[in-house]
Parts: sequence; C-alpha cells; structure tokens
Amino acid sequence: MRERFIVIGGDAAGMSAASKARRENPNLEIIALEKGDWASYAACGMPYYLKGNVDKIEDLIAITPEVFRDKRDIDLRLNHEVLRIIPEKKTIVVRTAQGEIELSYDKLLISTGAKVARPRIEGIDSTGVFFLRDIPDALKIKEYLEKRKPKSVLIVGGGYIGLEMAEAFHTQGMAVSIVELLPHLLSTFSLEIVQIVERDVKEYIRLYLRRRVNSIRENDEGKLSVSISDGENKNQEEIGTEMVLMATGIVPEVTLARDIGIELGHSGAIITDEYGQTNISDIYAAGDCTEVKSIVTHQNIYLPLALTANRNGRTVGTTIAGKKTPLSPIAGTAVVKVFELEVATTGLTDLDAAKGYGFDPVKVTIDSYSRAGYCPGAKPIKISLIADRNSKRVLGSSMVGEEGVAKRIDVIATALYSRLTVQELENLDLAYAPPFSPVWDPVLTAARVLQGKLE
Amino acid sequence: MRERFIVIGGDAAGMSAASKARRENPNLEIIALEKGDWASYAACGMPYYLKGNVDKIEDLIAITPEVFRDKRDIDLRLNHEVLRIIPEKKTIVVRTAQGEIELSYDKLLISTGAKVARPRIEGIDSTGVFFLRDIPDALKIKEYLEKRKPKSVLIVGGGYIGLEMAEAFHTQGMAVSIVELLPHLLSTFSLEIVQIVERDVKEYIRLYLRRRVNSIRENDEGKLSVSISDGENKNQEEIGTEMVLMATGIVPEVTLARDIGIELGHSGAIITDEYGQTNISDIYAAGDCTEVKSIVTHQNIYLPLALTANRNGRTVGTTIAGKKTPLSPIAGTAVVKVFELEVATTGLTDLDAAKGYGFDPVKVTIDSYSRAGYCPGAKPIKISLIADRNSKRVLGSSMVGEEGVAKRIDVIATALYSRLTVQELENLDLAYAPPFSPVWDPVLTAARVLQGKLE
Repeated sequence: MRERFIVIGGDAAGMSAASKARRENPNLEIIALEKGDWASYAACGMPYYLKGNVDKIEDLIAITPEVFRDKRDIDLRLNHEVLRIIPEKKTIVVRTAQGEIELSYDKLLISTGAKVARPRIEGIDSTGVFFLRDIPDALKIKEYLEKRKPKSVLIVGGGYIGLEMAEAFHTQGMAVSIVELLPHLLSTFSLEIVQIVERDVKEYIRLYLRRRVNSIRENDEGKLSVSISDGENKNQEEIGTEMVLMATGIVPEVTLARDIGIELGHSGAIITDEYGQTNISDIYAAGDCTEVKSIVTHQNIYLPLALTANRNGRTVGTTIAGKKTPLSPIAGTAVVKVFELEVATTGLTDLDAAKGYGFDPVKVTIDSYSRAGYCPGAKPIKISLIADRNSKRVLGSSMVGEEGVAKRIDVIATALYSRLTVQELENLDLAYAPPFSPVWDPVLTAARVLQGKLE
Repeated sequence: MRERFIVIGGDAAGMSAASKARRENPNLEIIALEKGDWASYAACGMPYYLKGNVDKIEDLIAITPEVFRDKRDIDLRLNHEVLRIIPEKKTIVVRTAQGEIELSYDKLLISTGAKVARPRIEGIDSTGVFFLRDIPDALKIKEYLEKRKPKSVLIVGGGYIGLEMAEAFHTQGMAVSIVELLPHLLSTFSLEIVQIVERDVKEYIRLYLRRRVNSIRENDEGKLSVSISDGENKNQEEIGTEMVLMATGIVPEVTLARDIGIELGHSGAIITDEYGQTNISDIYAAGDCTEVKSIVTHQNIYLPLALTANRNGRTVGTTIAGKKTPLSPIAGTAVVKVFELEVATTGLTDLDAAKGYGFDPVKVTIDSYSRAGYCPGAKPIKISLIADRNSKRVLGSSMVGEEGVAKRIDVIATALYSRLTVQELENLDLAYAPPFSPVWDPVLTAARVLQGKLE
C-alpha cells in the first residue's frame, strides 16, 4: 500500500507541501482537505481585487483544483472540514457533504492558517461591518460596494491590510478613516519611518491614533455610528460611516492542534522542530498557524507572511517525501504599498525590542534619494538601520520612499542572513547608475553613518 | 611642519581621498592638483546632461572648488598638471600658469583616472567626430548638437556609454546607429540577457554587430561617411551620418606612474597592495587608474566604475590620515538603463571566464515578473545566474527587465560578498507584496532552478 500524506488546509503552506511532496515522491498518496470552497489562492491580492486592479476573483487562484488533481495527482477535496485528529489511531475525522468519514494517515500536515481576530465590540455583527481574510470575505465586500455604493468607510486597524484597503477604498472615491489602538500605524516598522507614512496618509484619509472602538450602532437608514475613545475612555467621539472594515489582525487557527496537546508557543501558534514536525510524531505543521525562527535572534516569532508559508510548506513537503530538509529561519522582511509610498522592513527595528533580546542596539536614520540628485524624478528615501554595538552586526532596518524601496530592503535581509557587520554592509558593491541610485546607495550611506556611531 | 598629502587628479577617487583624509586628520596639509578646469564632477551624469535631463553642466559638480578650499581646508588647484614624480626627492614637478614648480610631498596619491582609448582610424580627427570622457568633451558635443542640429549619429562601441548616448540622441529625435566590433553589446553581461537588450534596442536604433570602422571621411557639406566591414574586411559598407561618437572604451592614465617604475597589471592599470600603496613607498593610487580585487575570484581586475573610485579614494584617504584601512574587494556590479530596459550584472557571468578562474560553472536563465502576475503593470524579468558546482557558491548574475532590475541585482552582489551558496540564496527572506514582486522573488526562482541543477 502507498504511504498516505494528508494535508489539512488547502492554501499556501498546504498546497506547496502537497506539490513538492509529489515532485519528490511519485509513490506517495496525497490528500489535501480544504474546509472551504477555495484552495491555493493569493490572499495578498485581495486588496488589489477590491481596488479594482484585478478583474476577476478567479485571477487570484494560483493553481486550480483541476491542475492539482489531473496534473499533480493530488486528491484535493474542497468543503472537507477536519473535525479532529486521533493520533493514537493515526486517523482524522472529516465532515463531508455525505457525512463524517475517518481517514488514516501516515504523515499529517496541519496547515490551517490563521483566522481574523474578532474583538469584542458591541454591534460588530451589524450589516456593513466586514472582515477580510479569505475569498468569501472579499466577495461579500465587493458585493456591498457594488450594491450599496457606500461613500465612506472606517477601517479599524492600521497594519498592512488596513493600509492597503485604505488605498483601495480611496481609489474608488470613498472617504476613508483609520482607527488604530496603538500610538502609530505599522507597529513592527521603525517609528522614524512610520512617521513619514502617517504624514503622507493624512493627505488622503482621516487618521485616529491611540483610539479604541467601543461600539458600532446601526441607524434606521442602515448607516453606522462608531463610538471611539482613547485608552482611558476619554475623548469619546462618534463617527458616522456607511461601512466598517475590521483589519484588527489575525490569530493562528490551532483548534485541531490544541485539542490533541500539540505544543503551542507564546503567540498561541504551533511550535515545530527544525523539520516542521510537532511534538506528536508524524504530525507536521507549516504556514500561518506556526511560529518560525528568526535569523536575527534565533528565537521563535509569529510572523504569518506569504513567502514563509509557501517556503515552509515546500520544505516540509520535501521532508515528508523522504528527503529531510530543515526549515530556513526568516529575517522578517515585509513591504507594503501605502498610497504613493513603498514602506519596507526587515529584522529588528525597535531599540527596546532589540534590548529585550540581549543586544546593545544603536540606530541611525538617514535621508537620501532614489536616483542621482541631478536626475529628474529623484525621490527622497529615508532609511533607519539598527546594529548591535558589541558584535557590530546589522540587526534590522525600515525604509520608506516613493520608489526604489521595495527591493532595496532585500540587501539588508541578505545581510541579516549572512550576519554581516555594519562595516561589511558599507563595503558592498551595490549597483549604481544615475537613474537608479546615487553613487553611494542609500543603504551604503546608512551603513556609513551607523559605522561612525559604532567606532 | 605639517605633513603634506598631495593628490594628483581632482575627481572621484582623488577628492574622496582628500576629503576623508581631512576629516580624519585636521593637521594634514592637503593639496589636490587637477590638470583641467573641472574637479569633483559626476562623469556618469554626462549622458543625462546630453539627453536634456540635466539643465546645466554645473549641476553635475558634486562639490565646488570653493567648498573644498573654504569648508574642507583642501588646497584644490585647477589647471595644475603634474609633469613628473621624483620619488628619490619625494617631490613632484607641476606645470602652472606661472611656469613649472616643484612641490614636496610626504604622501602622494595618483588618481589620474582613465582616458579614452583612441583607435587608429583614418579620419578620426574629422569635425563631427567626438569622444565623451570629461566635461569639456560633453560641452563640445552639446555645442555641436545645438549649432549643427545633426539628424543622425553613428556610435562606435556598444558598452555603457554607447548605449546611454544612443538613448540620449534618440530622445532628441536623431537617427542612431551603433557599430560594435564584438558579436554582442555589453560584453561583460550574460549573453542570454544581452540578447533581450539587442532585440529591444533594434526597435529604436540600427545595430551593426561584429563590424569594425575602417575610416571616416568628411564630404564637402560637412557630412561624414563611415566605412565599416566585418573582421575579415568583408561585407564592406558605407554609412552616411552627420555625427560620430567614439564610445570605444577607456584605458587607465598611468603615464606618471609608468615613468617611475610603478608596477602595472595585465590591464595596464596600477597595482597596489591592500592599502592602496604602490610598489614605491608613500605613493598610493586609487580610482580608474588602478586594478582592484574581485571578491569572487580574488584576482585583480580592471573595472573602472564610479562607486569603486569613490570608495577606494575614501579608504586610501583614511589610511593616509593615519588609520590604516584595507581596500574592499568588489563584486563587479553594474547597471545601465537602455531605453525602456534596466540591465544589471554582478560577478562572473560567462561560463568560459568562470572556467578560466578554476570554477566548474553551472548556469540557468529564468523568466519571471516584476510584480504578482495578476497585478497590472507586471513586467517580464529575465535572470541568468551562475554557480560553481564544487563549492555550490553563487558566482554571478545578469538581469534585464523594464522595472525592478536595477536594485534586484544588489541581492546577488550581497550574496557574492557573503559567499552564499545557491541553497542559501534560495532561502533568503526577500520582500513580497503584489505590486513589487511575485511571492517567490525572481531571484529566489533563479536560485531554486539552479539548485535543481546542482543536486
């Protein structure tokens, strides 16, 4: 009998694992169970679909179920929800349209992803209040936009999704507000960089920082009134809006894992060994339901991002297919487009966080340009760079600018992976031509200034 | 008495050295001698000046002579040509407007740069034939363009300058031809990448590859007739043009050095030790007149580029100021804008060259996109990547595309510097958001495909 590999959750990590396991091992029986209607889609593309940049929702499907079944010999079953895992019997119980079934496995991958964090807010279930996590969410928002043509929206949460959706709504002529509980947007980016973003977005939207949402009320005409206040419940304010988007973040979906005693980390996400195996033998986990290791701190972190999910799924698939391969640690690189700005980050960007990991951090923030100063179209770039005073190693960076930022961060990500010192970063032979960079690339300038503080 | 540091040549390397030496050592007497009228200018900006992107030639001056003299206490003397060095006396002989003078030095820096290679071609001194190396050259071309308004130009040489000038002339409505002696443009880039460039430029200009220029003749109306043929003097052809630009490359300017027995490399450029000192004590060299060390091969190469000149000048200035600092090897990173295309390269890109250095090279070329496939505006990117089969180390890469190439090459440059293997390159946590990259950045895809060939 063929060895059977079952994947729970048919998105980035799960389908990457299934596909890679198939390529490595043609003899494996591979079953992928997805509780919903959609598998293998580009979740990161949903804001661009809602912005009107992507024609049809189907364009976000990376690989269709037919291709998985017919070309890759992967038995992908949609609308199959796994109810529980029985490790002692090495089986799982699955709800199907025809009732519950029990399937045995040899290897199991939990790639159940993450789900929206639903804050306890009065009125959160009102018509006109939306979340955005999966394709059904996106379709509901699209339908509401088309039918109701709301002229205003209040977004709760100033992270990636909140900001991308602010641009999407603004592009369609809506009045957009963002309410953020924390003192600043994009909390994992350097403050100096975030301040530029905040200054910029205020030209397009209304920004409420350090404000919590207390309640959402629906009036007779179907309009919403959102009550916000500061942390001490002072400065109460009522904001009228025709739509609310809750972009308050996600939490790992670990119900199945928790039920059988799989070890979870501080974040609540699944902990695995370096091969992606949980503390229960033959049960692996990958993607947005797991913690991953930081290349900078060597500690586990919860940073659910698309590349990591795809890559770790792929790596676990390789291991399950019989070729043991360790997971790669991550630098924590992220980039987001916010109206005209490219905003990017990698590694540690906050002095206090770096101290918490035992570093003696030094930080500089520099201003430079995306092209030679005399070149028309040169745009300002601001870079913040952190290093450890003892080891002189680069620890992280955030950047912002109108061009040349999204991929410039990758030099720092590569430097983190290579454990470069600031001096080594300064010595890099980076590309120069007047339309693309000053002679001293902004990254080199940041390294030079930081090196001056380390000497 | 103050120690005296004399710099010969007032451009990138020389003025970087002078400035850095001043910052490190306020007591040094610093004299910089420039034989021409212009110091510290952005030579790389000249094609953009001639394209009409830069208003005044003065915009290319990085730092004015007044700032050097008044703010940096550097005695910069224009129109001072050094005639010879007398190492036994530690003096130099300088031609000035007031006659020859002799100056003593404690430390000397030869930063005489490079000069155009003047091929022996009949009629090369005709009116309407130009070189482009320094600001007087640029001004002569500008004047000719404005006075004569030529409608056509033939460029001899398909390197950086030839291609940048092709775009500059084309933008002004001129008919442009390029004649290149070698079988392809951009000879230091991967052939697979260059072929894309050639296909693209043919939409804008006439391209003659594998063709040498035999003679240039001026007719009575001041028009030029250029005779070209292939290597065996067959396929002779006469091309009528109103202007010729010789972009046939540069050679190191080493007359002063050679006269006193300073050691030169195979390229004809000056060889220094790791601190930039020549084989004559207290005489240093930096910039376009020197060879530099490759991070990939550890061999000396001649690759006269702006960042290296600036950086090595700065490093030698630090050493001369009393703080001994080694020169950093280079990856050999370069980028050039060619009409719509960004074309970039770093490290070794040719299999034969790599074999010559003792590697067992493996190369792949992949096609990807600058953004997520469903994102409007996604442009094709082609990447060629080479590694060594024995060490698995990345050796070099070339790339081409309409966006996102110029700074993507920097990841490979950083990888070369960090001696990453292909597997390590594939493991990098690079930035992803739909407007800037597919989930798997093209660099990661190239690494993955190459890794497949290494296994």
